[in-house]
Amino acid sequence: MMKLFYAPGTCALASHIALEEAGADYTLARVDFSKAEQRSPEYLKVNPKGRVPALVTDAGILTETPAILAYIAQLYPQAQLAPLKDPFAFARVQSFNSYLCSTVHVAHAHRMRGTRWADDPAAIEAMKKKVPESVGAAFALIEHEMLKGPWVMGEHYTICDPYLFTLAEWLDGDGVDLAKLPRVIDHRTRMSERPAVKKAVAQERG
Amino acid sequence: MMKLFYAPGTCALASHIALEEAGADYTLARVDFSKAEQRSPEYLKVNPKGRVPALVTDAGILTETPAILAYIAQLYPQAQLAPLKDPFAFARVQSFNSYLCSTVHVAHAHRMRGTRWADDPAAIEAMKKKVPESVGAAFALIEHEMLKGPWVMGEHYTICDPYLFTLAEWLDGDGVDLAKLPRVIDHRTRMSERPAVKKAVAQERG
Repeated sequence: MMKLFYAPGTCALASHIALEEAGADYTLARVDFSKAEQRSPEYLKVNPKGRVPALVTDAGILTETPAILAYIAQLYPQAQLAPLKDPFAFARVQSFNSYLCSTVHVAHAHRMRGTRWADDPAAIEAMKKKVPESVGAAFALIEHEMLKGPWVMGEHYTICDPYLFTLAEWLDGDGVDLAKLPRVIDHRTRMSERPAVKKAVAQERG
Repeated sequence: MMKLFYAPGTCALASHIALEEAGADYTLARVDFSKAEQRSPEYLKVNPKGRVPALVTDAGILTETPAILAYIAQLYPQAQLAPLKDPFAFARVQSFNSYLCSTVHVAHAHRMRGTRWADDPAAIEAMKKKVPESVGAAFALIEHEMLKGPWVMGEHYTICDPYLFTLAEWLDGDGVDLAKLPRVIDHRTRMSERPAVKKAVAQERG
């Protein structure tokens, strides 16, 4: 059985939803960020990066959301979470998720994790100030160029959808003008109505 | 035939090397950053993100290095650039490349692309100052936890290797202490001796 290390409010939710959508047999292990458990010697043995998510599988431990999502899709092909037999369509899925991890999530992280990239408190404040603009610009590209609708890749629900939903949940806190993102917000609402999403969100809040 | 949009000194080199390793039939299209061609209306039609690389294929256009690399590996299975038949091993490859794009490349980008995340010139200077530390820490993790040797994934050369090589080429400019990364530097040297790498590097310099 697989075990997902997660913390509420993090991008681990994307992997959690994907496990639910796949009907996977898994358990959850909560990492308490308020106690800095992600930096504990025990957790660093699971993930030396000191981050979540980490998925413990029979084959070994996996980290990084795009890799975990693609693995879940490959492990449970009957759930049809990715176009596994079409290399180009699969690459488009990977491209979207790569944009989320390297650009969207990174822009967001400058609100609360600025110490990763600067020590000066004034610089960290300056980073926070730009988050509505940088996250807003990244989501504007998703709104106008990437999100096909009703799901990210069009008619078929894929591993892009829980990942986009997870990051779109941060828009309010990031101070982004939601009125400019009607299609993203519509997608977020549609996602929030799925049983797998409801269950994963409830488990993380509980 | 495929066409790779690139600029010298960027992460596009990883995809360029992979195309060479695969024996792919492709052409190169240079995007001149000194003339801001990446923001030109013509190029934004290719890649609305205004970045490189972008790979134009018969099936459509692909962006984001991890997705392009995995696509090349899938399109040219005979080149054996990824463990395509082992979902967990493939996920490990994707995980490594995801770390490079979301953490290593991002840490590096704070040296010259700070305006993405702050407007205040003092904040941008503060970001530059931390690059040797943040990039150094990311590479220390690669040195001690990830790079199996002789190649990233062990005995088999994969799409992780050109990507690591490309980012390791930036270490000197980033002010990282190379003496602390003997295995990474050894890998960089080993890579630089491969014919595909020599050819790609020469083409980008020419």
